[in-house]
Amino acid sequence: MSLLDQTVRAIRPLDWTAMEAARARQNTLTKPPGSLGRLEEISIQVAGITGKTRPVIKEKAVITCAGDHGVVAQGVSAYPQEVTLHMMYNFLNGGAAINVLARHAGARLIVVDMGVAADFEPQPGLVIKKVAYGTADMTRGPAMSRAQALQAIEAGVEVVEEEVAGGLSIVATGDMGIGNTTPSSAIVAAITGWRVAEVTSRGTGINDEQLARKVAAIEKALAINRPDPTDALDVLSKVGGFEIAGIAGVILGAAAHRLPVVIDGFISTAGALIANGLAPLARDYMIAAHASAEIGHKAALAHLSLTPCLDFGMRLGEGTGAALVLSLVEAACKLLNEMATFESAGISEAI
Amino acid sequence: MSLLDQTVRAIRPLDWTAMEAARARQNTLTKPPGSLGRLEEISIQVAGITGKTRPVIKEKAVITCAGDHGVVAQGVSAYPQEVTLHMMYNFLNGGAAINVLARHAGARLIVVDMGVAADFEPQPGLVIKKVAYGTADMTRGPAMSRAQALQAIEAGVEVVEEEVAGGLSIVATGDMGIGNTTPSSAIVAAITGWRVAEVTSRGTGINDEQLARKVAAIEKALAINRPDPTDALDVLSKVGGFEIAGIAGVILGAAAHRLPVVIDGFISTAGALIANGLAPLARDYMIAAHASAEIGHKAALAHLSLTPCLDFGMRLGEGTGAALVLSLVEAACKLLNEMATFESAGISEAI
Repeated sequence: MSLLDQTVRAIRPLDWTAMEAARARQNTLTKPPGSLGRLEEISIQVAGITGKTRPVIKEKAVITCAGDHGVVAQGVSAYPQEVTLHMMYNFLNGGAAINVLARHAGARLIVVDMGVAADFEPQPGLVIKKVAYGTADMTRGPAMSRAQALQAIEAGVEVVEEEVAGGLSIVATGDMGIGNTTPSSAIVAAITGWRVAEVTSRGTGINDEQLARKVAAIEKALAINRPDPTDALDVLSKVGGFEIAGIAGVILGAAAHRLPVVIDGFISTAGALIANGLAPLARDYMIAAHASAEIGHKAALAHLSLTPCLDFGMRLGEGTGAALVLSLVEAACKLLNEMATFESAGISEAI
Repeated sequence: MSLLDQTVRAIRPLDWTAMEAARARQNTLTKPPGSLGRLEEISIQVAGITGKTRPVIKEKAVITCAGDHGVVAQGVSAYPQEVTLHMMYNFLNGGAAINVLARHAGARLIVVDMGVAADFEPQPGLVIKKVAYGTADMTRGPAMSRAQALQAIEAGVEVVEEEVAGGLSIVATGDMGIGNTTPSSAIVAAITGWRVAEVTSRGTGINDEQLARKVAAIEKALAINRPDPTDALDVLSKVGGFEIAGIAGVILGAAAHRLPVVIDGFISTAGALIANGLAPLARDYMIAAHASAEIGHKAALAHLSLTPCLDFGMRLGEGTGAALVLSLVEAACKLLNEMATFESAGISEAI
């Protein structure tokens, strides 16, 4: 049995007993029932994920998967492909937004080369799982082979498993890859059935002409490749990306190990659509971090029935939104754990 | 000149030079311009507040003001008045939601007795500024005298000034007071002109009959007292509360000392309406923490042109939403400060 098959089979429904116990405890805490809103819901979800009535978030990791995209040859991005490489060095040197936010959250940052079009020396903080030097141009055929798609997902699972060995309570996903809103929009269009123009916007900041070119490129890729929306591996291989595959693997790996996984923005949610297609139970392990400024994000979140925690107009990726939300999830669990009950505070139950 | 007058005069417009410099720096950081959305806006606002191009958030304080309300005699709350006292002990013993969230944010919690209907022994973490043992019932006359309103606001200013002496970078407001959504709705109706029924909801969880009674009590209080919407001190004294006055003072004190002030939910925003009425420049020092589940909050935020950071369906008060948002403001400032520029990261400016 493949690692992917093993992983999918290991994903179980949430633990309803733990959730009921967490919900009951929430109603004994010194506050009006339900008055902590979404924080209560998150704490109950994490109880169900971990199987613990009073879950504790300790070790946190942001896993940022990177890859390049052949489709950038179609002029779909505001930045040249080399920026993926430059940003990888920025991550490894600690200067990117995700470095700042991971430090702020007390999370370790793991940068994964899933398929950048350049080589890296092995170094701390970098995991090399390179499948290829970027995908093929999806407007001319599949972005990758089915075997490569499988390999890339399993690489994401492996990254989580290596991190679990060192202690891990929660995972945040992230991405880097110039051009990667293009395959993400393609995946969202293929899986949700929304029209390409409805799920495609300006990525890092392209103009009207470039946006028209981007929409046309995605339409062409879908027309040429005809991905089967009921087969997530088919969608991923035909119009996906290596970092998106890695993210799908990270999500599946987290779910298989009963870890909550905070899904960053648009690219990460494209990965979540693939993970959900392969293992629908994985969806319950997801916490949507934020509402991306990319218009296709709404369709993707609706397909997964996920409600984002933040709406900050962010559109950077890297895991930045997810890193911010790690702290909110941790706070939600601390409230469940550390608040006094009416009884322990000596306040009458009668009120 | 009174302390209030001095404080109002000390509030200056934001420092536009620092804001422009912060905005310029944001555009040199290694990310697409604007891609950090609200986090960029917050960092620029804090630059304008502090007058520093690269502000640093170090010492954080949550100031939770407490008071009781004569209007609870009208049956407007789900809880009896003694719960204010019980919750004060819960705060001082570290078991309430705000204790957990202040600890999580690395903020010190200062609990202020502005007007609780009971006495407290002096103890660490408690500041006693008691104006009276609860307000008078506003359905029968003014909640407090104009002199008491002034005294209570100045007490809030003093609390901030005492904290500034010990080092302070940012303030979060909070409230405790059984029945205090009632005066808050009254203040919002008086100042915004919205109808009472449009700005009044269920507080800690009252039923339909109690809600009708609450709306009637507020309508009666407004009819009897006829507060002048152009005179914030008049509104506060006639239909306010001591903790709401304290919050207004905390906001004014923070603004006078060029500190960002995170406004919690409905009750804190009622305090912000009073502060704004006394010193309209104070509004630019405010960061709205979250969208409360109380329906009147929308009218109050709209009047102040503030957009909340979180929408978590919270309705607990205490400063819980504001404490959560402290960490987001700190993250926004760290991004401005710590991220590499394209130049420092050695990435071509040409891209």
